[in-house]
Amino acid sequence: MAECELRSDCPINYVSEVIGDKWSLVILRDMLLEGKTRYGEFLASEEGIATNILASRLRMLEDWELITRVPDPDYPTKHRYAITERGLDLVPLFVEMILWTAKYRPIPDERLEDVRRARKDKDGLIRDIRSQFV
Amino acid sequence: MAECELRSDCPINYVSEVIGDKWSLVILRDMLLEGKTRYGEFLASEEGIATNILASRLRMLEDWELITRVPDPDYPTKHRYAITERGLDLVPLFVEMILWTAKYRPIPDERLEDVRRARKDKDGLIRDIRSQFV
Repeated sequence: MAECELRSDCPINYVSEVIGDKWSLVILRDMLLEGKTRYGEFLASEEGIATNILASRLRMLEDWELITRVPDPDYPTKHRYAITERGLDLVPLFVEMILWTAKYRPIPDERLEDVRRARKDKDGLIRDIRSQFV
Repeated sequence: MAECELRSDCPINYVSEVIGDKWSLVILRDMLLEGKTRYGEFLASEEGIATNILASRLRMLEDWELITRVPDPDYPTKHRYAITERGLDLVPLFVEMILWTAKYRPIPDERLEDVRRARKDKDGLIRDIRSQFV
């Protein structure tokens, strides 16, 4: 990790350096909320990430130890990605993001249940999302 | 707001489009946690934002209605920035960011009290931060 190049010691600055770009959040969402693990799956997401950006962001997320490369059980010569503990600890942040957006924008059907859960039982939703990865 | 140009309807994508860059979070931190309101104050922050980036990010944050321009009471010909309700609603996200970083990195002295508060009484901390702006 490029810890020595941080712009400051501020904890908010740290988050902005680690996930402060338009694509890292989308890739982490694919993993945490959609269960995606493979390059091709990230590439297929509706936001339409370009191949070179996807490759660079996956490398960045690996460097920050939010995701890690693991062998793909279905294709022995390939790898897929797994979320790390440090990445899983971002789940509360993602839940707050969903809540914030839900306050100001229509939410697509497939996320409505998350919004309902987040409003009623935030800790339970966080636990449920985490539990899919352990 | 550039709502029509969103890459998708996903609530996480929305957050990434609104604050998914390395500087917007730092400027919002300056406002929410440091009480800064003026261009020159943002410019002086230790992360060292460049003038052209600061100007562009302030404009973006205004476009997304997270901040708004208000007359500067001390300098009648100038303006300063105020956080909007929509911006204030990001406070829970900032508190989660502080907690996440605190799990993995040393926290500078001036933020330790926030970390302690966030761990013990998250809702109280969120209320206290918000109450400084109303």
